[in-house]
Amino acid sequence: MTTITTPDEFKQAAAADLAVLREKKPLVHNITNFVVMNYTAMALLAVGASPIMAHAHEEVEDLTAISGALVLNIGTLTDYWIASMIKAGKKANVRNIPVILDPVGAGATRMRTDAAKKIIREVDVSVIRGNASEILSLADETSKTKGVDSLHSVDEASRVAGILAAELKTVLAVTGKVDLITDGTSFIRVQNGHPMMSLVTGTGCTATAVIAAFSAVNPQPLYAAAEALAFFGLVGERAALEAGAPGSYQVKLLDHLYLLDPESFKKGIQVTLND
Amino acid sequence: MTTITTPDEFKQAAAADLAVLREKKPLVHNITNFVVMNYTAMALLAVGASPIMAHAHEEVEDLTAISGALVLNIGTLTDYWIASMIKAGKKANVRNIPVILDPVGAGATRMRTDAAKKIIREVDVSVIRGNASEILSLADETSKTKGVDSLHSVDEASRVAGILAAELKTVLAVTGKVDLITDGTSFIRVQNGHPMMSLVTGTGCTATAVIAAFSAVNPQPLYAAAEALAFFGLVGERAALEAGAPGSYQVKLLDHLYLLDPESFKKGIQVTLND
Amino acid sequence: MTTITTPDEFKQAAAADLAVLREKKPLVHNITNFVVMNYTAMALLAVGASPIMAHAHEEVEDLTAISGALVLNIGTLTDYWIASMIKAGKKANVRNIPVILDPVGAGATRMRTDAAKKIIREVDVSVIRGNASEILSLADETSKTKGVDSLHSVDEASRVAGILAAELKTVLAVTGKVDLITDGTSFIRVQNGHPMMSLVTGTGCTATAVIAAFSAVNPQPLYAAAEALAFFGLVGERAALEAGAPGSYQVKLLDHLYLLDPESFKKGIQVTLND
Repeated sequence: MTTITTPDEFKQAAAADLAVLREKKPLVHNITNFVVMNYTAMALLAVGASPIMAHAHEEVEDLTAISGALVLNIGTLTDYWIASMIKAGKKANVRNIPVILDPVGAGATRMRTDAAKKIIREVDVSVIRGNASEILSLADETSKTKGVDSLHSVDEASRVAGILAAELKTVLAVTGKVDLITDGTSFIRVQNGHPMMSLVTGTGCTATAVIAAFSAVNPQPLYAAAEALAFFGLVGERAALEAGAPGSYQVKLLDHLYLLDPESFKKGIQVTLND
Repeated sequence: MTTITTPDEFKQAAAADLAVLREKKPLVHNITNFVVMNYTAMALLAVGASPIMAHAHEEVEDLTAISGALVLNIGTLTDYWIASMIKAGKKANVRNIPVILDPVGAGATRMRTDAAKKIIREVDVSVIRGNASEILSLADETSKTKGVDSLHSVDEASRVAGILAAELKTVLAVTGKVDLITDGTSFIRVQNGHPMMSLVTGTGCTATAVIAAFSAVNPQPLYAAAEALAFFGLVGERAALEAGAPGSYQVKLLDHLYLLDPESFKKGIQVTLND
Repeated sequence: MTTITTPDEFKQAAAADLAVLREKKPLVHNITNFVVMNYTAMALLAVGASPIMAHAHEEVEDLTAISGALVLNIGTLTDYWIASMIKAGKKANVRNIPVILDPVGAGATRMRTDAAKKIIREVDVSVIRGNASEILSLADETSKTKGVDSLHSVDEASRVAGILAAELKTVLAVTGKVDLITDGTSFIRVQNGHPMMSLVTGTGCTATAVIAAFSAVNPQPLYAAAEALAFFGLVGERAALEAGAPGSYQVKLLDHLYLLDPESFKKGIQVTLND
C-alpha cells in the first residue's frame, strides 16, 4: 500500500490512475436508480470505463464477478432492488471487487435509512459517497456521532465523519462545497467543483460512478475516492467555462469527463491532506 | 382567493409566482414514467424546484408528506405503480398538497383509461394535464360529453372540457396548439408554444411537472396550471430561436427553463381569459 | 417482393423508404431497457416514427396491435419483462407486425442467453441486431456454427452469420466496424459509421430502434435492416463533423437523425451486396 503525504504525490498518483483507467477500460456494474441510468452510463464511458446496468437476481452475481467495481445506488429503491444489491455486494466481497455505495436520500425516509444500513451490515463496502445529511443518517443508535445535529462547521464535519468512518470500517466521501474523504485516520479535502453541478440531476450519483471507475484501478479506496472527486470536480469547473445553463452544462460535463487528460488533471487538482 | 380578470393581471401574478418559486425551491414528488425521469428532474431543477422520484409503497407517503406538490404520471404504468400513486395521492389529500395527474395514453388502452379513472375516483386531483383525446377518455359513461367524437373545433373543445372539468371537479389543462385551462367556470387559453416541442419525448410530461412546480406556490390550480403552461410554452419559443433539430432543442429547453426570468416571462405571455 | 442487386438500386430504395417513413410516422412499440428509453424515444421521433414505451402484461398486446413494428430489447431484463416481450411478440406475429430483437448482453450471462433464445423460440422475429458475440451466443448446441471461437475475420463472420440466419430463419444484423446483414442467402455489408458512436451508451439499442422504424415501412427485413444501419451510420458520420466529445455527440446524433434528408442519405450510403 502506498502512503501519500503531500498534494504533489497525490496529483502524481491521480494522473497515473487516470491513465491506467483509460488504458484498462474496467467494467463497472451498476445497480442504480432509473433517473441516472443513462447519464451515469455515459459518464462511465466518457471517463474511460465500461458500464453495465443490471439488477435481475438471476444474473447480478454473474455480472459482478466479471466487473472491476460495483455501484450500489438506492435512488429509486424497492425491496427487489435492495435484495439485488446485497446479492451482488456479497459476490463482490468474495471476489475482492470494490463496492461503492450511494445512500441517496438516506435520512429522508425510514425505508432509505434502513436499506442503506442493511447493505452496510451485510456487505463490506469500500466507499460510501453522500452529502453530509445522508452520511450522518448511517450512524447507529450507539454511535459516538449521535446528538450531533449539524455538520455545518467544517471542523465538526471532519471530526464526525472520521468517527463514523472508523465505526463503519469504510471510507466516507462526504461531498459538498468542499469534499471530505476519510477512513477515520487520514483526511483528504478536495476543493475542486462548481456550483452549477447542483443544477444537474444525479451529479452525486455520477460522482459515485466515477469513484467506482477509479476504484477499479486503485486498490486503496481512500485515494480512489479522492482522485475521482477531484477529477469530477475539475470537470465541473471546465464545463462551467463553456455552459451557463443546466441543459448545456449537463452535456458539457460529459464532454469534459472525456476530454480531461492526465496532465491537465494533475495541474488542476486542489487538495489538502490530513487537516 | 384571487380572481384574475385581465391578461395584465394574469401576467403580473405569473411573474410574481415564478419569483416565489425560485425563492422557495419547493420539493416536488414525482411518481412518473421511466422515459422522462431524468428529463423532468432536470426541468424541475431548472425552473427552480427540487425534484424527488420515488415509488416504493413503503416510502411514498413519507416523501409526499414533505413535498409541495405531487405528480402522478401513468406513462409506463404497472399495477404496482398505480397503487403507489393512489397511496401517495391520498396522503397528499390529507395534507392539502396539490396533486397533478398526467394520464399518458389514456384512451389508447383499457388499462390506462381504467388506471386514470381509478386515480381520479380515489384521489382529489388538482389538475389533470393531457392532450384532447387523453382528457376526453376520462369521461364517465354517463357524462354529458359522451358521443362527442372530436375536439377539433376550438369552441367544441372548450365546451366539452368545461363540462368534464365540472363533472370531475378538477382543473383540466388540455394542451395542444393552443392550451385550454378550465375549472368548468373560467376558461384560460395560452397561445405560447412552438411546434418543435412535439419532437421532444415527454414535453407533455414536462409540462405536467412544471404545473406541479407552480402549484406548489400558487394555491389556485386554475392559475397555477395556466401560468406553468405559459411559462413552458414561452421557453419552447425561446429554445426554437437557438436550436433547429431535436437533440439540441431538448437541451435548449432545459437551458431556457432556467434562464427565463420573471420580467421577460411577464412580457412574453400570450393568454386570453374567459372566452 | 423486390430483389435488389446493385448498390444503386439499394440507395434508391433506401431513400424512398426514408421519405415514406417521414410521411407515415409509424407507431413503434418498444419493450426495452431503462438505460435507453428516453434516448431511443428521441431517436424514433427524430427519424420520423412515433414511439411508445410500455411493458405491462395487461396492455402490451393492445399497443402492439396498433403499432407498425415492435422492438424487444433485453438490456435490463427481469422475468416480468421477458414475459411481456413474448406476449407482445406473439400478438405481433398474429398481426404480421415485424418484431426486431436486440439480445443485449446475450452470451455474457446465462439469463440473457436463455431469455434471447426463449424469445426466438416462441416468437417469429424479423431481425436480430447485435454485435458478433451476442449474435453467436444465440446458436443452438446442435448448430453448425458451434466450435467457432471468433468472428474476427470478416469472411469467417460472414459464413457463420449466414449459417445461423438460415438456422434461425431470420435476418441477422451483426453490427461492428462494418455491419453485416444476412438472411442466410443474401449478404449486405454497410460501411457507414463512426468510431465516436461507441462512446454513446445504447447506440446499438438505437440502431435496433431505427431498424424497427424502417421495418414499419419496408416489408423485407433484409433491406429494412440494411437501410436503417446505413442511415444511422451516416448520421454518426455527420454528427462527428460537429462534435468531438461524447456529450455533444449524443445530442448531435439526434439532430442528424432528424436533419438527414432522403437525397443526402442516398448519396452517403456505402454498401456492398452479396459478397
